[in-house]
Amino acid sequence: MPKQVDHAERRRHLARAVCRIIATRGLDAVSLRDVAAEAGVSMGAVQHYFKTKEDMLVFALEDVNERGAARVGEYLAAIPDAGPRDTLRGVLLQMLPVDEESREAVAVGLAFWAKAATSPRLAEHLREGYGALRDLIALLLGQSKPAPGVDAADEADALFALAEGLSSHILVGHREPATAVRIIDAQLARLLP
Amino acid sequence: MPKQVDHAERRRHLARAVCRIIATRGLDAVSLRDVAAEAGVSMGAVQHYFKTKEDMLVFALEDVNERGAARVGEYLAAIPDAGPRDTLRGVLLQMLPVDEESREAVAVGLAFWAKAATSPRLAEHLREGYGALRDLIALLLGQSKPAPGVDAADEADALFALAEGLSSHILVGHREPATAVRIIDAQLARLLP
Repeated sequence: MPKQVDHAERRRHLARAVCRIIATRGLDAVSLRDVAAEAGVSMGAVQHYFKTKEDMLVFALEDVNERGAARVGEYLAAIPDAGPRDTLRGVLLQMLPVDEESREAVAVGLAFWAKAATSPRLAEHLREGYGALRDLIALLLGQSKPAPGVDAADEADALFALAEGLSSHILVGHREPATAVRIIDAQLARLLP
Repeated sequence: MPKQVDHAERRRHLARAVCRIIATRGLDAVSLRDVAAEAGVSMGAVQHYFKTKEDMLVFALEDVNERGAARVGEYLAAIPDAGPRDTLRGVLLQMLPVDEESREAVAVGLAFWAKAATSPRLAEHLREGYGALRDLIALLLGQSKPAPGVDAADEADALFALAEGLSSHILVGHREPATAVRIIDAQLARLLP
């Protein structure tokens, strides 16, 4: 079905343009005109795929989430016999803005977040994404044989919040990625001795 | 010096108006006109105190930080013989959006954050604030007699990032304040047995 492939590919191409604009110039700069210019297509073509700015944002967030999942896949591919603990570490580390792609992902997430404060639809979308990621962390933590006495539910919440906070601190230049990785590894060593 | 008192009081009154607009309608809604209307003053009066939107944002952030410090003070006033551990807990808990005032503070911080991505001046301001809060957490942790083997510097970074991440998760409705308090208390119990 080549037509459908084209369709998905074009949406993705446009979503990437939205992501680049958000990461470099901020959410305010996302307009029909600028997305068309950044993607090298007509404004009509953008409108064909996205009816509203909210549509663009939703798809941009889905795109960065897909790319995050792909980064976890690449990370695991380099580890022979990767188990749930490796996967858990990979999921947490891909949340950190350590290169251009992951910085873009965090910037898009943040812009989305700021917009969700005044849009129930975006807030609902964000909560769904948060819930899925948190449940994945809890599942992997449970499968990784945590130390006796570890409250897996609360510690999953804590790991998720910790990675999110560290990610913000790196993006604004308050902390280095290496510090964040060391902190996450110390928590994993404590929970999974 | 009644004139100076008036001056500071008026700036604060305007900063509160900016905070309320950000928390309820988002950063995009902050304009000279809307701030004047919200504060019940003339546009000229707003311009007298704030030359640019950035000025308003900087002062709004300082105002929420001052109110956060006041909340820590109130929290400690209710504890007989409060020590550094109580202060540390108070500092971390005041970061959580648990009522209207603290939700407003987190919303303002977030809006500031999103804007800092494209403003070096705001980013610098944010890093200074982050550095001061992090150093306070590290100081209090060190004074609270941490368990042997605790890396106070990294654990201070981790507590700060954890509270920040939890704060985001509460604001968007992903987690309840009670869960965040329980998680912070569990970390304090581990670090300060």
